[in-house]
Amino acid sequence: MAVYTDITDEELSGFLALYDLGEPLAFKGIAEGIENSNFLLETAAGRFILTVYEKRVKADELPYFLDLMGWLADAGFPSARPIPDRQGRVLQTLRGKPAALAQFLPGLSARRPTVAQCRQAGEGLAWLHQAGQGFAGRRSNDLGQAAWAPLFAGLGDAAEALKPGLSATIAADLNALAAAWPSDLPAGVIHADFFPDNVFFREGRFAAAIDFYFACDDFLAYDLAVTLNAWCFESSGEFNLTAGRALLAGYEARRPLTPAERAALPVLAHGAAMRFFLTRLADWGRTPEGALVKPKDPLEYERKLAVHRAGLSLLTDVA
Amino acid sequence: MAVYTDITDEELSGFLALYDLGEPLAFKGIAEGIENSNFLLETAAGRFILTVYEKRVKADELPYFLDLMGWLADAGFPSARPIPDRQGRVLQTLRGKPAALAQFLPGLSARRPTVAQCRQAGEGLAWLHQAGQGFAGRRSNDLGQAAWAPLFAGLGDAAEALKPGLSATIAADLNALAAAWPSDLPAGVIHADFFPDNVFFREGRFAAAIDFYFACDDFLAYDLAVTLNAWCFESSGEFNLTAGRALLAGYEARRPLTPAERAALPVLAHGAAMRFFLTRLADWGRTPEGALVKPKDPLEYERKLAVHRAGLSLLTDVA
Repeated sequence: MAVYTDITDEELSGFLALYDLGEPLAFKGIAEGIENSNFLLETAAGRFILTVYEKRVKADELPYFLDLMGWLADAGFPSARPIPDRQGRVLQTLRGKPAALAQFLPGLSARRPTVAQCRQAGEGLAWLHQAGQGFAGRRSNDLGQAAWAPLFAGLGDAAEALKPGLSATIAADLNALAAAWPSDLPAGVIHADFFPDNVFFREGRFAAAIDFYFACDDFLAYDLAVTLNAWCFESSGEFNLTAGRALLAGYEARRPLTPAERAALPVLAHGAAMRFFLTRLADWGRTPEGALVKPKDPLEYERKLAVHRAGLSLLTDVA
Repeated sequence: MAVYTDITDEELSGFLALYDLGEPLAFKGIAEGIENSNFLLETAAGRFILTVYEKRVKADELPYFLDLMGWLADAGFPSARPIPDRQGRVLQTLRGKPAALAQFLPGLSARRPTVAQCRQAGEGLAWLHQAGQGFAGRRSNDLGQAAWAPLFAGLGDAAEALKPGLSATIAADLNALAAAWPSDLPAGVIHADFFPDNVFFREGRFAAAIDFYFACDDFLAYDLAVTLNAWCFESSGEFNLTAGRALLAGYEARRPLTPAERAALPVLAHGAAMRFFLTRLADWGRTPEGALVKPKDPLEYERKLAVHRAGLSLLTDVA
């Protein structure tokens, strides 16, 4: 939800001169996406999203993300297809920053997902996992289980500041997760950030996924665990079992879980909560200069960690 | 350029239930307008802008602004027509704040206006002045000449902090403006904030004006002076005479100035620079809580004041 970069008329004209899309008819900065700048661009040729990548996305990883978006679209999955210029290039430079043009996808994200939307989201995620099969690009998950202990190494004081005693609790969690982390689940391309913000609905049905800038290779069921955490908790911190069952049922309607995936879901969900807790903790109180985004509260994920730590087996009950 | 208010699914559904526009197909916060929250809403019935009014706009003045937008649209001027609900109401409440739905108008604002765009902007402003004739609403200009001395009363220290010696210069300006301010020019509805941000072009031609939330009754030529200041200065601080001549010529192509208006333009432009200098000075260093806007630099208008104070008669040369 950020617009950092302003684009001048000359920059937009110069950019559009690379394409055969006609003159711009409308051009508006929109509050969408992670820390990139997104613009809705309309020309006689249609509607597009222009993304200018801010520093958080590594430029050398953009070809992977853009290739993946194109691959998924080719496979029939509703992800925004990057638009190549006359020379076939999708990655451009605007104001010295990497930029890309992609299809505009209609649809609305759910601010507060309903159970029916959770089911649709689960189905959409399984579809994404299926559509990603065969994609040749490779990107390891730099925020995966192996990264958590090093990431936490410098954050003990921040955890204590958030909640006294939390540092030791997190350290114990990290040990437990390292010991219990599965090693042989079905893997493939995962979205890794399939949050309600990044999913569009249309007339009650899953319509699109956006923001693939955390996509990587990892266990498919880990992506499901990230999604369960993101969609199925009440704002009061409680896990909504009905929503969780619906999300899982939607997922399994397209891609049934193996027994090993099902058994691993509780630890995967615990780990998925850890990943978002840690990055939010790292961002907390460290708002970038000129940012139009507020850092997200790490306590939301601290509460989710506590739910998973309590071992209520909610997820195995679900499965 | 702000999105303060987030709208939940339920709030949007409840809002749309008042209308016959169908289900939402897209809904995005956009970076547009003054300190209000604007959303691009698409339904089967078309595209709309939903505006949620934040505290800077006084709720009891909204009927004036919305009536004016409707009046201008009825008169054929391209201003966004407010959309009445089934009961004929245009002013609604969303999340406890006033809100209104209006037509989406295509077009792009000029980040750095060309001379040709200045001419088009002048023509658009004259069109607006003509279309406003006969509008029954009345709103006095609470940021007009009579308001400047009281507004500056509490800002002497801020002016000194900006630039030592500035406080006395501004006080002298205010006396000079009070003495020279005209009293009998053609008056009517003015936009009062006809800045490049608030003007859309399409295929090189004036296409629309938005953001009428400073509109009021005042001298028409004062609106022209505000517009000259906003469009015809280089970022280096120099008045661009070519752009100024083009803007005036565009204006006069639709509405020729009277000799008295022409003679008053230098003092009106000096005053128009004062009005924006003072409000920017008042806002400087006083960023509202949770704001996603940066306060605008008062020094930009301090430099414009200096140009007009120097009495170069640039504007009378133009006219």
